[in-house]
Amino acid sequence: MSLTNKILINTQPHLEYLGEKISIIGAGMVGMASAVSILNRRVTKNLVLVDAFGDKVKGEVLDLQHGALFLKHPIISGGNDYEATKGSKLYIITAGVRQIPGESRLNLTQRNADIMVKLVPELMKHSPDALILMVGNPCDVMTYVAWKASGLPTHKVIGAGTTLDSARFKVNLAKKLNINPEDIHAWIIGEHGDHSIALWSSINLSGMRLQHINQQIGTVEDSEDWIQCHKEVVGAAQAIQELKGYTNWGIGMSVAVMAKAIISNELNVFPVSVNAKGKYGIQDDVYIPLPAVLGCNGITDIVDLHLSEKELTALQNTAKVMKEVQDGVNLGSQAHKCNCTRCKKH
Amino acid sequence: MSLTNKILINTQPHLEYLGEKISIIGAGMVGMASAVSILNRRVTKNLVLVDAFGDKVKGEVLDLQHGALFLKHPIISGGNDYEATKGSKLYIITAGVRQIPGESRLNLTQRNADIMVKLVPELMKHSPDALILMVGNPCDVMTYVAWKASGLPTHKVIGAGTTLDSARFKVNLAKKLNINPEDIHAWIIGEHGDHSIALWSSINLSGMRLQHINQQIGTVEDSEDWIQCHKEVVGAAQAIQELKGYTNWGIGMSVAVMAKAIISNELNVFPVSVNAKGKYGIQDDVYIPLPAVLGCNGITDIVDLHLSEKELTALQNTAKVMKEVQDGVNLGSQAHKCNCTRCKKH
Amino acid sequence: MSLTNKILINTQPHLEYLGEKISIIGAGMVGMASAVSILNRRVTKNLVLVDAFGDKVKGEVLDLQHGALFLKHPIISGGNDYEATKGSKLYIITAGVRQIPGESRLNLTQRNADIMVKLVPELMKHSPDALILMVGNPCDVMTYVAWKASGLPTHKVIGAGTTLDSARFKVNLAKKLNINPEDIHAWIIGEHGDHSIALWSSINLSGMRLQHINQQIGTVEDSEDWIQCHKEVVGAAQAIQELKGYTNWGIGMSVAVMAKAIISNELNVFPVSVNAKGKYGIQDDVYIPLPAVLGCNGITDIVDLHLSEKELTALQNTAKVMKEVQDGVNLGSQAHKCNCTRCKKH
Amino acid sequence: MSLTNKILINTQPHLEYLGEKISIIGAGMVGMASAVSILNRRVTKNLVLVDAFGDKVKGEVLDLQHGALFLKHPIISGGNDYEATKGSKLYIITAGVRQIPGESRLNLTQRNADIMVKLVPELMKHSPDALILMVGNPCDVMTYVAWKASGLPTHKVIGAGTTLDSARFKVNLAKKLNINPEDIHAWIIGEHGDHSIALWSSINLSGMRLQHINQQIGTVEDSEDWIQCHKEVVGAAQAIQELKGYTNWGIGMSVAVMAKAIISNELNVFPVSVNAKGKYGIQDDVYIPLPAVLGCNGITDIVDLHLSEKELTALQNTAKVMKEVQDGVNLGSQAHKCNCTRCKKH
Repeated sequence: MSLTNKILINTQPHLEYLGEKISIIGAGMVGMASAVSILNRRVTKNLVLVDAFGDKVKGEVLDLQHGALFLKHPIISGGNDYEATKGSKLYIITAGVRQIPGESRLNLTQRNADIMVKLVPELMKHSPDALILMVGNPCDVMTYVAWKASGLPTHKVIGAGTTLDSARFKVNLAKKLNINPEDIHAWIIGEHGDHSIALWSSINLSGMRLQHINQQIGTVEDSEDWIQCHKEVVGAAQAIQELKGYTNWGIGMSVAVMAKAIISNELNVFPVSVNAKGKYGIQDDVYIPLPAVLGCNGITDIVDLHLSEKELTALQNTAKVMKEVQDGVNLGSQAHKCNCTRCKKH
Repeated sequence: MSLTNKILINTQPHLEYLGEKISIIGAGMVGMASAVSILNRRVTKNLVLVDAFGDKVKGEVLDLQHGALFLKHPIISGGNDYEATKGSKLYIITAGVRQIPGESRLNLTQRNADIMVKLVPELMKHSPDALILMVGNPCDVMTYVAWKASGLPTHKVIGAGTTLDSARFKVNLAKKLNINPEDIHAWIIGEHGDHSIALWSSINLSGMRLQHINQQIGTVEDSEDWIQCHKEVVGAAQAIQELKGYTNWGIGMSVAVMAKAIISNELNVFPVSVNAKGKYGIQDDVYIPLPAVLGCNGITDIVDLHLSEKELTALQNTAKVMKEVQDGVNLGSQAHKCNCTRCKKH
Repeated sequence: MSLTNKILINTQPHLEYLGEKISIIGAGMVGMASAVSILNRRVTKNLVLVDAFGDKVKGEVLDLQHGALFLKHPIISGGNDYEATKGSKLYIITAGVRQIPGESRLNLTQRNADIMVKLVPELMKHSPDALILMVGNPCDVMTYVAWKASGLPTHKVIGAGTTLDSARFKVNLAKKLNINPEDIHAWIIGEHGDHSIALWSSINLSGMRLQHINQQIGTVEDSEDWIQCHKEVVGAAQAIQELKGYTNWGIGMSVAVMAKAIISNELNVFPVSVNAKGKYGIQDDVYIPLPAVLGCNGITDIVDLHLSEKELTALQNTAKVMKEVQDGVNLGSQAHKCNCTRCKKH
Repeated sequence: MSLTNKILINTQPHLEYLGEKISIIGAGMVGMASAVSILNRRVTKNLVLVDAFGDKVKGEVLDLQHGALFLKHPIISGGNDYEATKGSKLYIITAGVRQIPGESRLNLTQRNADIMVKLVPELMKHSPDALILMVGNPCDVMTYVAWKASGLPTHKVIGAGTTLDSARFKVNLAKKLNINPEDIHAWIIGEHGDHSIALWSSINLSGMRLQHINQQIGTVEDSEDWIQCHKEVVGAAQAIQELKGYTNWGIGMSVAVMAKAIISNELNVFPVSVNAKGKYGIQDDVYIPLPAVLGCNGITDIVDLHLSEKELTALQNTAKVMKEVQDGVNLGSQAHKCNCTRCKKH
C-alpha cells in the first residue's frame, strides 16, 4: 500500500472537476497576461492553455502551476493539443501571427483568418456548447470569421471589441476629473483602433452630461482640449508598443473581467464586438463593438443608444468599411457551411 | 414596446442561471451569518434561503438583495417553499429547535431528528445530486440522521464537525505564539462540544511538534498552562452565549469556507463529521469529526493520523457514546429505507 | 525559557500594528452587520468594536475572533471603553436608541443627539485625525450633530445618507431591465427615508437617459409604473422591519463599501450626507445626501447635477425642513464650541 | 472655470495618498509579474515601478494604468528616477543583470553586487524607514549585500529565499496525495537553487509526518520515489527556462504574497533569506533561507526547527559556502560603513 493510501483513507474515487473551464488559445504575451489575471482574480478554478509552440506553453503551465499554492489549488493544464480543452465553457482566442515588415494589413488579416478557419472548428469539436471570446487581431474581423467558422449562433461569439479602449478613455477622463474611472461613464465604439468613435454626447458623471456643460467637448474648438483623452486612446497601443514592444497587461485584465462576466452571469454592459445587423440602421452581418450585456449565454442584449448625428454617421461608415473588410476575407473551404441543421436552427 | 425593450435590443432569451447553487435551510442567526459570509466571500452567485417562517425569510432575502449592487449581482431568493432550492449543488442545513428550559438533551435531539427526517427527503426530491453540509445541533447526530434520511452515499453527507472548534483552538494557540493561526497546525476532533479531543501529539508549527519541546503540553502538569487554549474552546460557545445570547459569526465564516472548498473542489482538510466506520478501529456507522478532504464530491479521503494511546482511547470512547446516542434516536417511518435500489448501489 | 521562545527565536520586538484602524461604535444589528462585511471584504486588518453594553460587545468580539483563521489574521478587539479606539483612521457610528412606542420623532432625535454630543468628543480625544461615518438615525441630523460635536472640518464628517436607498433603487431598476445594477446609474438624494428624492431626470443606462425614451417615467402617468421602483425604496426599511424586525445586511454592506472608499482613497461618488451650504442654492449649514466624492480625506468634491425644476424644488424644500429639524436639536453645553483655535483654522 | 470645477464643487484640496506604497525596482519579466500579481491581488493601492530603461518602464506603467478601471483606481506610477519611490513602505528589488555566456558565477555575482551597492543607498535616501524584499539573483548573497549597503537592521532586509522552491515542493507533494498544497507542510531551506535542502523529517499532512510512515522517504532507497518531488524543484527553474526562456509567474505570485504579509502584518511563516547568525549553530552574519515570521516590521522571529542530523549538517555546510561567497564579494567604497550612529543603535 502506498504512503498516500496509508495516510489518506480513500472513501470515494476523485471525480474529474470541470468547474467553469476556460481555455485560452495562444500563450503569447496577451494570452499569458490574460491567464495570470484570470487566476489572480479567481475567475475560474480550471484553466487550460493551448499554443502551437508546445515547449513554450508547457513552460508557461509549469510556471503558473508553481503559484497554485497561492491560488487555492486551481487546475492548470495545457499543451499543443486541443483535446485538453474538452468541456470548456469559454474559449478565449488570443492566437494569431504578427505583421511581417512590409506586409499589407489585408494580407495579415487573411493569414490570421486562415488560422481561425482551421482552429475554431477544432475547438467546437471538443466543446460544442462553449462561447468564444475573440481577442486576436484585427479583433472585429476575426470575431466575424470565428462566428462563420464556428457555426455558433451570433450571441455566443463575442469580440473583445473596444473594452480596453473604453477603459483607457475612462482612465484619461477620470484623471482630469480626479475621480475613480468607474464613475465616469463613457464609451468608445465602432472599431478597435484608429477609427474608434468616442461617444461624447453620452459621457456623463453621475448622470450629468459633460457636453451639457461644455458644448465644444470632443471637438478641436474645445479650449480645455478634452479631445486629447480620446487621442491618447487612439495612440495608446502604438505608444506602448514603441516603449515596450507590445501591450499585454491592460488587455489581459480586460479579458479577465469579461470572462468573469460571462462565467458568473454578471450581466454587465461591455462595448464588445457583436453582430450589428438590425441595429443603428446597419443591414449587414457585420461585427463591430457596441455596448452589449454579457452573461452566461453570451450577448443577451445590445444597448440602443441615441447617438448624435455625427456619431451615427461615423458608426454607419465604420459598418460599411468593416463589411468590405469582412467580404475581402476568404473563409475558404474549411469555413462552416451554414446550411447544416445546427445553423438552420438558429 | 416597453422602455426596457426600447433601450435593450434583446438578442437571446435570458437563460436561467444555476451556477453553483447553494441553499441554506434555516434563516436564524447561524443561517444568516453563513449567508452573509458566503455572499461577501463570493462563494456562489446563486443563493437560496428557506425557512419555516416565511415572513422572516422574505425579510432576510429582501435585506440581502439590497446589497446586490455591492456583490456583482448575485441571485438571492427564498421563502418557505423548498421548490426554490431546485437544482442545488449544496444544502447547508442550519434548521432546528432550541432547548426548552428543563428539556433533556435526548429529548431535544429527538425533536431535531424529527425535523431532519421530514426535511431531508424533501430536499432530495428537489436536488437529488446535492451534497449536504449539516450545521444543525447536535451536529454529529444530525449528520447521521441526515445520512439515513437522505439515502445518499456516506461521502455526500458532511457535518460541520469541529471545524469551528479547531479554528478557535488555532487562534488561541497562535495568540500565545504571536503568529498567524494559519501556521499553527492543530486539530480538535471527536465531538463538537464538551467532549472534544485536542490532538496535542500532532500540534506543530512548521512541522516542529510542540510536545517535542514541552512533554507536559496539554496536561495539567504543564506550568505554561497550554491546556487553557483547549479549555477556552470547550467553553467558548457557552461563554459567548452568556455574553451575547448565541453564537453566529465564527460558525458562519467556517460554513462559508467549507462551502467554498466543496463548490470549488479545493481539496482542503477539515475536521468534519464523517462516517468513521473502518477508521481508527471504529466498527460502526457512527458520525464523528475526523480530518477529511473536502471537494466537489464531498469527502474523498479521511486522514489516518497516528494518535497517542490516550487520544485513540478517547476517540474510541466518543465513538461508543455517539453510537448509543444515534441508536437512541427514533428515525421513524419517514427515514429512508436502506434496501432501495439507490442505496444498494452505494 | 517558554515554549514560544524555544520554537520562535525572536529577532525584534513585535510592533503595535495600527494599519488602517476602523472603530465601529455600537455593536447592535447594524454595527455587527457592518463589522462582518468589513472583515469578509478585507476593508481593514484592524477593527475595534465599542458598545455601552460591555458583555454584549465582548461576546461579539470573541465570536468574530474565532473567524480570524479565515480572515488572514486581522486584529479584532473592543469593549465598552473608547480607549481601545486610539489611533483610528475612521469611526463608524451606529450607536443610538430606538423609538419608544408613543415617542415623538423629535424626542427620539433629541435623545440620540444627546448621545452623540457626549460620544463624539470622546472619540476625538482618542483619534483627533479620524474621519466620522455616521450611520445612526436619523442619519442626516446626526451627521450635523456629529459635525458640531467633533469640531472637525465639514469634509471629515460624512453621513451614510442615501447610499443604501440608491443601491436599492438601482437593484429595482436593474430587475426591470435584467442587467447588473452597477450599470444603471440612478440617484436618490435629499433625505434618507420617506421624503427621499429620486432623480428621474438623470437615470441612465450607458448614458442613455430613460426619461428621454419615456417622458412619463417617475410619474403616476407612466403606464409602465417605473415609479414603483422608487416607492419600494421608500417602503423598503419598513417592509423589512415588518417581516424580520429590523434591517441590517444591506446597510452593513453599504457601510463596508463606503469605508473601503475612504480607507483606500478610491474616490468613488456616493450619495452621502454632506454639508450642502453653497450648493444647489442652499444657504445654510444643513446636512443632506448629495452625490459626493469619497476618499482618504473624506469628501473632496460634491457633484453639481443639473436637476429638473421639480427635483431642485424638492431638494430645497428638504433643506428647509432639515434646517428646522437641526435647529430644533439642543446641542447642549457639551457641543464643541466653534471659537476654538482648531475650528478657526478650518 | 473649467468643466471639472463646474461639475465637481471642490470642498477640500486632494491630499497626496501614500497608502502602503510599494516600489518595485526592476521592470523585467520578474518585476512585471510581481506588479501584475500585486495589483490583481490588491496588495496595495500605490505601486511604483523603477527601471534603468526609462522607455520600457514608462510603457509598462501606461499598460498597467489602463487596467486601473478594473482595480478600484490604484495609483500606478514610475520611471527611471528613484524620486518617485519617496515614502515607500517596501522596496521589492528585482533588478540585476543576466549571465553572459562564459561568465563565471562569481563574476556575475560581483556585477550584481555592484548594482546593489549603488542602488540600495539611493533607495534608503528616499524612504529611510522602508523594508527591503530582495528578489534579484543570486538571492541570498544579494540580500546580504543589500543589508550591508542599506545600513538597515537585519530584520528589515529580507530575501525571497526558498519561498518559491517550497511552494513548488508542496505542489509536487500535493499532486501525489491529491490534496490542496496548502495542507501539506513542507520546507525547502538553505539555498535557493541546486543546493536547496528539503526537510523530509518535518514534512507532514495534518501533523502526520510522512517519514513516520515511510522511513525511506527522501532517499534513493524509497521505492515510491518521493525524492522526485524535490528533484523537480531543483530542476524547475532550468526546466522552465529551457521551455520558455525565463521564469516569472510563480516568483511573481510568491512576491505578491510575501509583500501582502509584510504590508498587512499577517505574521505568516515563510522560508525567507535571513541573517542566520546565532541560529542552528551558525556563527556568522550569513544570509540563508530559514522559516521566519513576516510582518509589518520585517522578520520578527525565526523558527527553531529540530532538524535531522543530516539536515543540520547540510544547513551548516550551506552556511559555510555562503559565508565564502559573501566574503568573496567586494562591497566597494560605497557600502554603508557600519560604524555610524544608526547602525550602532541596532
